[in-house]
Amino acid sequence: MRVAVDAMGGDHGPEVLVEGAVAAAREKGIAITLVGREDVLAGYVEHYDGGGLPIDIYPASQVVDMEESPAESLRHKKDSTIRVAFELVNKGIAHAVVSAGNSGATLATAIVALDRINSVRPAIATIMPTLKDPVVMIDVGANVDCRPHHLLQFGIMGSIFAKRIIDNPRPRVGLLSIGEEYSKGNLQVKRAYDLLAASELNFLGNVEGRDIFKGDVDVIVCDGFVGNICLKLSEGLAESVLTMLKTEIKRSLMAKIGYRLAWSAFHRFKKKVDYSEYGGAPLLGVNGVAIICHGRSGPRAVKNAVSVAHELARADLAGQIAEALKQDAVRLSSAAT
Amino acid sequence: MRVAVDAMGGDHGPEVLVEGAVAAAREKGIAITLVGREDVLAGYVEHYDGGGLPIDIYPASQVVDMEESPAESLRHKKDSTIRVAFELVNKGIAHAVVSAGNSGATLATAIVALDRINSVRPAIATIMPTLKDPVVMIDVGANVDCRPHHLLQFGIMGSIFAKRIIDNPRPRVGLLSIGEEYSKGNLQVKRAYDLLAASELNFLGNVEGRDIFKGDVDVIVCDGFVGNICLKLSEGLAESVLTMLKTEIKRSLMAKIGYRLAWSAFHRFKKKVDYSEYGGAPLLGVNGVAIICHGRSGPRAVKNAVSVAHELARADLAGQIAEALKQDAVRLSSAAT
Repeated sequence: MRVAVDAMGGDHGPEVLVEGAVAAAREKGIAITLVGREDVLAGYVEHYDGGGLPIDIYPASQVVDMEESPAESLRHKKDSTIRVAFELVNKGIAHAVVSAGNSGATLATAIVALDRINSVRPAIATIMPTLKDPVVMIDVGANVDCRPHHLLQFGIMGSIFAKRIIDNPRPRVGLLSIGEEYSKGNLQVKRAYDLLAASELNFLGNVEGRDIFKGDVDVIVCDGFVGNICLKLSEGLAESVLTMLKTEIKRSLMAKIGYRLAWSAFHRFKKKVDYSEYGGAPLLGVNGVAIICHGRSGPRAVKNAVSVAHELARADLAGQIAEALKQDAVRLSSAAT
Repeated sequence: MRVAVDAMGGDHGPEVLVEGAVAAAREKGIAITLVGREDVLAGYVEHYDGGGLPIDIYPASQVVDMEESPAESLRHKKDSTIRVAFELVNKGIAHAVVSAGNSGATLATAIVALDRINSVRPAIATIMPTLKDPVVMIDVGANVDCRPHHLLQFGIMGSIFAKRIIDNPRPRVGLLSIGEEYSKGNLQVKRAYDLLAASELNFLGNVEGRDIFKGDVDVIVCDGFVGNICLKLSEGLAESVLTMLKTEIKRSLMAKIGYRLAWSAFHRFKKKVDYSEYGGAPLLGVNGVAIICHGRSGPRAVKNAVSVAHELARADLAGQIAEALKQDAVRLSSAAT
């Protein structure tokens, strides 16, 4: 199982990507193909002492900029690192792709290159920290306009993914809404509720915004518009909370001394809420493994993303999803009409 | 200007409501009518030494439970505290209503009793803390299924409200979406973008989830489904962040000592993110003033809500909103068709 890494994307350039990939190869023995400019990547591999590791480099001459239109990049950049990485999967050279580059382009390229499983709507799943175990939130940005049966698809795919990361063969699924009762929610969510309740899933009902971090469900289903806003709000709020707290702490000497003493606690806490620990968000519903990393990913996030990609390819996540969708196929097709 | 307080609603019962109302009467000289069971309320007024203050009691024999269906309560509880409070406004005895009771029932009763301004969709505006000045978020729960022109209405009403609480005659309005560019967002939001851009508002474009707490806009427009999830997520996350942090702090003695030293900073921080400082969320778009408080409101939140209600009634917020909607009337009516 070999992981192709788009080694030119992301906010920090190729160095952090190579550093993370080298760490994954060294610590986990994962075979990696770095895709990008050979001279640049070879230099960093040497710098991080990756010479004897199972790492090779595959050339690609173009890079999709972070702000570029996904459609434009698909049309005009035939030799982009993102595209070449997915072609390696199609050729059987690699078995999973990790990219911290333009996430819209990664999404679009993954769907075109790997194709969708049973015409499903591919969705991005992310892992969020909670007071208990982490929770899978799906979709966080691939589908801004959804129909109710798409939410059922997300529940099915999210459950399969959750089984890989938590110790529960029947992950508890919740539907994001504005009240626990069935009657609360918009039209889309009320209809999705019925579909989820009738499915094979371990569906517990609605969860509210305040419940996301309680950890009482393993999978939270929502459309990509709501999910993306929630994800970014959470990142922004966690950062803002720490900034506000530090501003208050700086206002008194006693508090500053206190903060120093409590520093290790702050550090552990930051680690707990740090997205980089979870290493990127898989795109579920395509015939293969694609991990979309945060543009700001550092070496640690890249290493973890490579490790997740490898594990999902090894477990044949796409095959498992195809199987699960088949089981709910009748329900899905009648809901779609 | 007299404020009617539904004195039986809320999670903590009448005592905190009377305590908060007495404080508002004492500290701000606001005239208040407490609505509910006379014997109970008179006892608490005496207990909090409110005898000489401009407080009177108006009897209502029924209470809408927190979990009761708003439609049912409207139909069957003709003498509920919520209903009687709004009737006092219709009779000209009071000029604003504050309730910490069943928020769905308060919303429904306000719309029925006060009526809508120009057939507008009434929306709930809430004030959220940011790294800079507080921001008004509208709608946070009154409308779960919206059309684009409803979002324009929310922008107009939110701007009028924001002018009362910030020092800016042209509040900056942002539209909640999943990217800054116009092309990002679902169909509803893209169409609302065009309407907002063509309006008289100081519209700055899309804001993302992570920008809510930056404080770079004064009003954030969204539908009530998304807004309610964001509001509850923010409350839940802020609480979870503090819980996780405290858990980490408890794990070491040094950190515990540090926390003690930094306690005042924590306290100021909690005050900053505490919703009770902002005293409830006004329902905008009805012919009158209705403030919906959190069920968990304590005396301080109630006092602040009464103060906000009084200020909005004094400023004739409803009249200002009617005027502003008239200015954009042509645009609104063409968008609605």
